[in-house]
Amino acid sequence: VGYGDPVDGGSLTRSHAAELDRADPLRRFRDRFEHGDGDRIYVDGNSLGRLSHDARAAIQATVDEWGSRLVTGWHDWVDLAGRAGDALGAAALGAGPGQVLACDSTTVNLYKLAGAALAAREGSIVVPADDFPTDRYVLEGLAAAHGRELRLLEADPVAPLGVDAVAAAADGAALVVLSHVNYRSGALADMAAISRVVQAAGALVLWDLCHSAGAVDVTLDAAGADLAVGCTYKYLNAGPGSPAFLYVAERHQAALRSPIQGWFSQADQFAMGPRYEPVAGIGRFLAGTPPVIGLAAVMAAAEMLAEAGIGAVRSKAAALTALAIDLHDERLAGLGFSLGTPRAAVERGAHVSLRHPDAWPICRALIEQANVIPDFRRPDSIRFGLPPLYTRYTDVWDAVDRLAALVADGVHERMPAEAARVT
Amino acid sequence: VGYGDPVDGGSLTRSHAAELDRADPLRRFRDRFEHGDGDRIYVDGNSLGRLSHDARAAIQATVDEWGSRLVTGWHDWVDLAGRAGDALGAAALGAGPGQVLACDSTTVNLYKLAGAALAAREGSIVVPADDFPTDRYVLEGLAAAHGRELRLLEADPVAPLGVDAVAAAADGAALVVLSHVNYRSGALADMAAISRVVQAAGALVLWDLCHSAGAVDVTLDAAGADLAVGCTYKYLNAGPGSPAFLYVAERHQAALRSPIQGWFSQADQFAMGPRYEPVAGIGRFLAGTPPVIGLAAVMAAAEMLAEAGIGAVRSKAAALTALAIDLHDERLAGLGFSLGTPRAAVERGAHVSLRHPDAWPICRALIEQANVIPDFRRPDSIRFGLPPLYTRYTDVWDAVDRLAALVADGVHERMPAEAARVT
Repeated sequence: VGYGDPVDGGSLTRSHAAELDRADPLRRFRDRFEHGDGDRIYVDGNSLGRLSHDARAAIQATVDEWGSRLVTGWHDWVDLAGRAGDALGAAALGAGPGQVLACDSTTVNLYKLAGAALAAREGSIVVPADDFPTDRYVLEGLAAAHGRELRLLEADPVAPLGVDAVAAAADGAALVVLSHVNYRSGALADMAAISRVVQAAGALVLWDLCHSAGAVDVTLDAAGADLAVGCTYKYLNAGPGSPAFLYVAERHQAALRSPIQGWFSQADQFAMGPRYEPVAGIGRFLAGTPPVIGLAAVMAAAEMLAEAGIGAVRSKAAALTALAIDLHDERLAGLGFSLGTPRAAVERGAHVSLRHPDAWPICRALIEQANVIPDFRRPDSIRFGLPPLYTRYTDVWDAVDRLAALVADGVHERMPAEAARVT
Repeated sequence: VGYGDPVDGGSLTRSHAAELDRADPLRRFRDRFEHGDGDRIYVDGNSLGRLSHDARAAIQATVDEWGSRLVTGWHDWVDLAGRAGDALGAAALGAGPGQVLACDSTTVNLYKLAGAALAAREGSIVVPADDFPTDRYVLEGLAAAHGRELRLLEADPVAPLGVDAVAAAADGAALVVLSHVNYRSGALADMAAISRVVQAAGALVLWDLCHSAGAVDVTLDAAGADLAVGCTYKYLNAGPGSPAFLYVAERHQAALRSPIQGWFSQADQFAMGPRYEPVAGIGRFLAGTPPVIGLAAVMAAAEMLAEAGIGAVRSKAAALTALAIDLHDERLAGLGFSLGTPRAAVERGAHVSLRHPDAWPICRALIEQANVIPDFRRPDSIRFGLPPLYTRYTDVWDAVDRLAALVADGVHERMPAEAARVT
């Protein structure tokens, strides 16, 4: 039984969702995570993924190792950023070894790679006007520092990035920075086609994979991507503020240098010589001492994903979001909702955006009155993130059911409006 | 009984050291750390501090919180970098609230603050020629990017930084970067006097506190320091690669901007508006999502240090290093050693440098044959780091005893020489 097969006479009943759960080949992975939610339905794994038993065990083992081995632990930790990067590359990113590091934050990694690209190439910087804030802010700063134009690409808020629009914007650019999956709409860009047109224009393309790593089958090498960054605390479940990652295609490594010339990127690190000389290979994009305990959770996350298989994860993401979209059409569209996510499975990641003029009070009511945890993105999006490793089809059904009941009852109309909220 | 009082007839016997342990007001803190070393003597806490029960508990509690609260944990985590920074500032740094953040690595923090200083001031950059590599390398990169001269200040390898030498070098500088405690010699700089002469020359001073935070009573506010960075994995015992910290004196915050314009430094972060506008105050020096689990260990470390009192820590550091120096004079000087650390207690931190032409094979023999863990710094230094919270006077005595016996027996002469080693 797959999604789309009629159950209970073809209507979208809960028993249909339950049937999908029973047939789910990833079903056993749910038990690898800690729940204890009671009645809570968590559909915000696209903000912060769940804690797995594996991550907990890896963190504890590394704390034990710190306690017992002390400084001698560095014999194994010194290359952990590269080993965790290789593991992520193989499990989640379609990247061969020696091209990925797990280190720093997404923001710092974006700064390092974009800064390296601008030092190597003349031209402007292009980024979508609605891209995630940290990307735009970092690039605004780099544009000012390097005296470059920052061009904001206006894009359809729901559809995937248009290849032709990116091609036109890339003309005269040094660097084009794009999200693989849009943080608001969930729209998935065509990485291969867009990388080609950016490169044909003479620019480098840098992909932000925050909302695609661990959610869809990213294929950096096969798509010919130049550079990429992303986080590990969403679909990779490595914990709040866990180390991020960066990717630099092997062909570019020798010509690029990080603007942050830290000692972990030095060719002969413990010679502590007088001049900076970056190591050959991906290690030149390290900066300071790597966060060992955090990296242990990244490694555990990569290993679990390798076990599940990114192909199975991607298939389930498509099916979970398809169920959410069909439930939207059947239960929510008549209540003032519209879909903020592409309808074609190949054009979306693992979250859906449910748009409503009262999205903010509805979101608050969902959390406070219905024990459903989604998140809100201005101006009008409620995001349901559906990480395939632990989300059930019945979770999707229950979340929409509670949402529909709440809006039909007008519960949100009795919530106080507030201007700001942290998620 | 304090160090210097004669015991056992005035000779430096082990029972004298044991007497000092019995009288140690910080004695009970040793039991707050995990040991299980057996015969091992650990004198490398200046590379990686020990695991405390407090840090283990804080990490586990935060993992639990991640598992149970999921994204709603951010209501408490969102300002954790500032709260942990304030706690560090009060416990270890002599810094009032709103001036310290715990975040990123020392390297990235140095880059952010030095970059901010160079964007605000014209002039060269000054750094000691023998300063820690990451400082020199980061500044070399910034000097090239900003078109500034990087001036290397030659300094005595054992004595504290000379105030007059720094004053002369600061002429025409925008920024002077100095280590408070030298990583090799352990020499302690006069922060107040040097800050004054740098500022009189029209430059900003940035202090690297990696080897002084948690070891001596740093007094950033009282000394009139401008900027500072440091790590928390040495004397603060927050774990391998734990989050670092940065300090920006309140009077400078409005005029300085981080070159890395991340979303956690944005004035209205979750408005996700079109333009970057840094928040007022220290928060503008954040970049990406803070490492929550690592910050929990930093907070635990700051709380333990506050409980012990930095004054008591500093007094014991002076006494432990005094014992090491006297033992050097009595037991090691005749074996070809010379002292690489200032003899006046006010001129040194919490580690001593024991110099020997065969330092490298001696260091290896100590580790492999005598189960003493120090570290080696080129060209000829064996460092004994003596973190006051858990180091016993008998540890110092035993470590020197084993060292003296080993060198007297010529054990190191039978070790293979090697060119490289990671510590």
